[in-house]
Amino acid sequence: MTTKYDLNPDRLLPPDPVERDIARDLYAAVKDLPIISPHGHVPVEWFHDKDYHFSDPTSLFITPDHYVTRVMHSQGVALKDLGVNQKDFTPEQARNAFLIWGKNWGAYAGTPMRYWFEDSLQNVFDIHEKFGPDTAGHIYDELKDLLKQPEFTTRELVKKFNIGFISTTDDTLDDLHLHDETNADPDFPARLAPAFRPDVYLEPLTAGWAEMVGKLGDVAGVDTSTYDGFTEALRRRRLYFKEHGAVLSDHSHADVRTDRLSDAEVNKLYAEALAGTISADDATRLRRHFFSDQVRMAQEDGLVMTVHPHVHRSYDPSNLAEYGKDTGGDVPAKAEFTVDLKPLLNKYGNNPDFHFVAFTMDETVYARELAPLAGFYPSLYIGAPWWFIDAPEPILRYYAEVVPNAGFTKLSGFIDDTRALCSIPARHDTNRRLTARYVAGLVADHRLTLEEGRQIVVDSVVAQPTKVFKL
Amino acid sequence: MTTKYDLNPDRLLPPDPVERDIARDLYAAVKDLPIISPHGHVPVEWFHDKDYHFSDPTSLFITPDHYVTRVMHSQGVALKDLGVNQKDFTPEQARNAFLIWGKNWGAYAGTPMRYWFEDSLQNVFDIHEKFGPDTAGHIYDELKDLLKQPEFTTRELVKKFNIGFISTTDDTLDDLHLHDETNADPDFPARLAPAFRPDVYLEPLTAGWAEMVGKLGDVAGVDTSTYDGFTEALRRRRLYFKEHGAVLSDHSHADVRTDRLSDAEVNKLYAEALAGTISADDATRLRRHFFSDQVRMAQEDGLVMTVHPHVHRSYDPSNLAEYGKDTGGDVPAKAEFTVDLKPLLNKYGNNPDFHFVAFTMDETVYARELAPLAGFYPSLYIGAPWWFIDAPEPILRYYAEVVPNAGFTKLSGFIDDTRALCSIPARHDTNRRLTARYVAGLVADHRLTLEEGRQIVVDSVVAQPTKVFKL
Amino acid sequence: MTTKYDLNPDRLLPPDPVERDIARDLYAAVKDLPIISPHGHVPVEWFHDKDYHFSDPTSLFITPDHYVTRVMHSQGVALKDLGVNQKDFTPEQARNAFLIWGKNWGAYAGTPMRYWFEDSLQNVFDIHEKFGPDTAGHIYDELKDLLKQPEFTTRELVKKFNIGFISTTDDTLDDLHLHDETNADPDFPARLAPAFRPDVYLEPLTAGWAEMVGKLGDVAGVDTSTYDGFTEALRRRRLYFKEHGAVLSDHSHADVRTDRLSDAEVNKLYAEALAGTISADDATRLRRHFFSDQVRMAQEDGLVMTVHPHVHRSYDPSNLAEYGKDTGGDVPAKAEFTVDLKPLLNKYGNNPDFHFVAFTMDETVYARELAPLAGFYPSLYIGAPWWFIDAPEPILRYYAEVVPNAGFTKLSGFIDDTRALCSIPARHDTNRRLTARYVAGLVADHRLTLEEGRQIVVDSVVAQPTKVFKL
Repeated sequence: MTTKYDLNPDRLLPPDPVERDIARDLYAAVKDLPIISPHGHVPVEWFHDKDYHFSDPTSLFITPDHYVTRVMHSQGVALKDLGVNQKDFTPEQARNAFLIWGKNWGAYAGTPMRYWFEDSLQNVFDIHEKFGPDTAGHIYDELKDLLKQPEFTTRELVKKFNIGFISTTDDTLDDLHLHDETNADPDFPARLAPAFRPDVYLEPLTAGWAEMVGKLGDVAGVDTSTYDGFTEALRRRRLYFKEHGAVLSDHSHADVRTDRLSDAEVNKLYAEALAGTISADDATRLRRHFFSDQVRMAQEDGLVMTVHPHVHRSYDPSNLAEYGKDTGGDVPAKAEFTVDLKPLLNKYGNNPDFHFVAFTMDETVYARELAPLAGFYPSLYIGAPWWFIDAPEPILRYYAEVVPNAGFTKLSGFIDDTRALCSIPARHDTNRRLTARYVAGLVADHRLTLEEGRQIVVDSVVAQPTKVFKL
Repeated sequence: MTTKYDLNPDRLLPPDPVERDIARDLYAAVKDLPIISPHGHVPVEWFHDKDYHFSDPTSLFITPDHYVTRVMHSQGVALKDLGVNQKDFTPEQARNAFLIWGKNWGAYAGTPMRYWFEDSLQNVFDIHEKFGPDTAGHIYDELKDLLKQPEFTTRELVKKFNIGFISTTDDTLDDLHLHDETNADPDFPARLAPAFRPDVYLEPLTAGWAEMVGKLGDVAGVDTSTYDGFTEALRRRRLYFKEHGAVLSDHSHADVRTDRLSDAEVNKLYAEALAGTISADDATRLRRHFFSDQVRMAQEDGLVMTVHPHVHRSYDPSNLAEYGKDTGGDVPAKAEFTVDLKPLLNKYGNNPDFHFVAFTMDETVYARELAPLAGFYPSLYIGAPWWFIDAPEPILRYYAEVVPNAGFTKLSGFIDDTRALCSIPARHDTNRRLTARYVAGLVADHRLTLEEGRQIVVDSVVAQPTKVFKL
Repeated sequence: MTTKYDLNPDRLLPPDPVERDIARDLYAAVKDLPIISPHGHVPVEWFHDKDYHFSDPTSLFITPDHYVTRVMHSQGVALKDLGVNQKDFTPEQARNAFLIWGKNWGAYAGTPMRYWFEDSLQNVFDIHEKFGPDTAGHIYDELKDLLKQPEFTTRELVKKFNIGFISTTDDTLDDLHLHDETNADPDFPARLAPAFRPDVYLEPLTAGWAEMVGKLGDVAGVDTSTYDGFTEALRRRRLYFKEHGAVLSDHSHADVRTDRLSDAEVNKLYAEALAGTISADDATRLRRHFFSDQVRMAQEDGLVMTVHPHVHRSYDPSNLAEYGKDTGGDVPAKAEFTVDLKPLLNKYGNNPDFHFVAFTMDETVYARELAPLAGFYPSLYIGAPWWFIDAPEPILRYYAEVVPNAGFTKLSGFIDDTRALCSIPARHDTNRRLTARYVAGLVADHRLTLEEGRQIVVDSVVAQPTKVFKL
């Protein structure tokens, strides 16, 4: 017999009674509002399929979630035992991975992954047993049974989660018919958008780049053997995405520089890139030029730009070789925005129709760089804490670092950035609780009235992302 | 009919009842102490004129205050609509600017600008209507009437604000007769000091530098066609300022390096600078040499040095072209003190009569650089949070970052750094409340007795700035 | 007559009653657990001598403790008046140094040095008079008397402090017989370990390096005139230390790079280093190569590696000349781990038997670098806040910065790093209180149950250091 474990309704609200009462009031105003998710990584197929069921709890909660797997890796668990990059992962192995998770549950204490999973377990699956080494097997079996039930298809979950808008992240050449069909289906409960993510096309050293660029030309109906054709092809793909519902283009490079090359130089380097003879330094210079083209195009087509630069991708080469990209081996790099964004902001930052949302994983730039810049330039918005810093402590630090200079109107609103579908409501709820907590502090400080505080938390959930992402 | 809106007497004190009670006690000990303002930008004319009235609320609260205008700029408001750099700004336009401010009031939620203005409105003008889109017009009219009243001359305000000492920031060639006359006037209620700010003379690429240096020579009575003459002229101007009440020289360059040049080199570069042929790199090297001369002179004349380096001045060139300097287009740069100050500290840092106060806008240096250095060198003091970081959250972070290593005796005390006269009491009061809040935390932690805490907050307002700035 | 001054039993616990009650519970679970001190600087002689008495309070509390002396130096006190590097320091001078300390006690408000001394005074010496300018003389006399009593020998203190394990830091050539004899003595109450600290041997520009390397060869029984011999000698010394109880090697260089040189190059540079002709750049390259050898050896002999890089050693040359090293003139430098550790982590970071503990004094790397890296690599552990940041505020920041990504299982546990014996229990107690405080926050947030919180604080004091340092 297990003890019933219930999440406390006041979780993440401030413990001090004065602030907690205010925070409860503020949180009550937003807890049931629909979810707006302008950037994420849930595969479109999960939404398109009218009857999509997850095969088992491990492939839902562990294998695809590098947040979860990297903690176990740090405890000495091999990723292959968690199913990462395994073609033949048996049901026994899947169940065993869940047991390993339970055994390592202590390593998650204090992390958001633990918090999100406990929340999902109770609020999505109504399982009130405490997860841990002794219960992991039992919970696995219970979850596995539930996942077969009709109320646990992706679509039913989207309904249950009250998702109003959700964006996927898609291949530049995708014809987006799955998005179109899903949106055309009156039964699909949310607005579904694709996102334009041209990173690999802007990085000439990507393996197979010339071939990819050739296909880009085929799909766009332009000869991409020249730089002009390449640019035109990308311009058309942006428009194609926009016509099919995209609101933003998403970018992640080593920096955000937009240095332009001369016509002669860009043509020369483009030819070298196609020929595979371009140097690493020139590839970087070409990428910065390409990125500046994206910024220019955004002035014309109006797609919002989101950037999340400064990452050491695949930091561990043995991990990359064995398991591939995006398996937890990325690590934050030092960020720099003020110097690198200067040409971009000087040229386009005063255009209020251009929206540029900067995310970071290096908190030192919030107060020193992003808040002062966003507190001056109409175009610049500060992205919510992201990826390595989407936990309660850094979220509270974020507000305390950006609000004094940039206020609330230059913030992006929450972004879940996840492929872990069942964690989406927990993540948004976490952010709503913490926004309520920070704003409750301002009310308790008598810097805002309760009414003003209420307006701010409500706006942060609906009006603000609607404005920033032009929904 | 409008609802009466009253600031809470506990505002900015800790919400937790235990800490709040302590903080109330500490704050009570300092709330009515006179204001010491060792650095600011109020024009001396406002003090000199026995009957100076502000023409209208916009020219008092909006146009000259880049803190206020940059937030509206970030909302897409053109600075010209706020009167910035406008020669013919009509009364209608001035009133309209105030309405724009009201309309954008939501963008100020959580910022200190909002807090200061609400405080000024109630405590300076006794207006208890809540400012916002609906009341901006009415409040404008009320303020405009009040500004004509005899109790709202600058001098009456200085009395009302209980300002004991206030420093302006002045042109190096100023004859300071306005300061002398004001101080000689028994009716002027405070001690008024000029401040020596030679930045433009130390930066050889300043437009019109050679001409300025010529005038410097004329005023100082020295031939400045040689480096030696230039140095002597600056030495004399420092003494002139000191004789006329200055307590400090103020400096803001891209860095705080003091690398010396050889005699031959400095003479050569000085000649090039006068001829307008100096390179940017050599101008930087010359400026560092000039700055080291200022440091040397401070050993002799005893003027305190305040530095606030590491700013991207006029980051936005279109803003500079249309509106000029100091209109909100400055942005913080990364700071570095430990490496750059080494020669200065090695040579002069152990001289307890030399006071060097380092301000920053990059909070990352407080714990890592300034606190360890000031916790060793008698000469070095850590400036209060300044400019982009003079808000409640960063002020509390500042204390928590510097006190563990440097204690309270190596801090500068509060600096308002403003030309917004009516915000001065609100700014000092903000700092007193937050100092009480931080110290109340130490008392609540049982790290200090209540009596010790009381002594610390009182000292931080009076004894500490009196000592640091040699008042 | 003096008033009795008693430390509050709740000191450093959260003032909010909700959190305080939880924190009291957690703290109660750890307050009486034995002290594990895996790194420190107490001289082994103090432990070896069965009847070691401190000669006077100044030589116990002031002279050898650069934490204490640097604050007085920042107030303009000369270190020689505190006994630093003084051969003939008379009893009168020693007493006077204590009076100077009392006079400057206000400068310590808010610092951990003040907190530790007040704690030691009450809990080690049962003196309940408040230290300060008026009582310093009286307290000095009382302490001096007590130090002669039989219950204040070092060994009695070790017993009283309930120290279970303590490590010294020792010369690489030390034969460690004092450690052996102390451990063999059934009367010695703790386990005493030496630590291998080869820094000076890895820095070829150390004064007298060639001679030192020659002696290293003599002691190790290897000809160190070649690089291979040098490496073998260090390998043997590591083993010697391990055989005599060492659990770790300790390293502090300007960076943590491990770039390898070619065989030809390393032999050439080694010869130049011995000849004293090596350039500064080459000495750095050689040191990085040497350091990589230490890392390799750790794979074989299993010694834990602790690193605390990024310090400007002896920042003030006049202080170095007059008083020598380690007298408070060190200053933190900017830290960088992610780029510099990449080769090391890529090669060895996935070996769970290799333990690499990274300490820093630059808090900006906790959230951005160390937590993400330790949250992936099994080998990497995050050292506790250290040296300039071992105060309440930074300790709480540390937890809030590292736990969200790395949890609690990748933290080193507390390290006192001190030669100030009497401050050891106060330092460990400080950390236990603050760990309880941080974890109480997680419990109050309903992110952990009380029971889970209790387990975490207990583990952090015993199980965690036992695991990390392989005790």
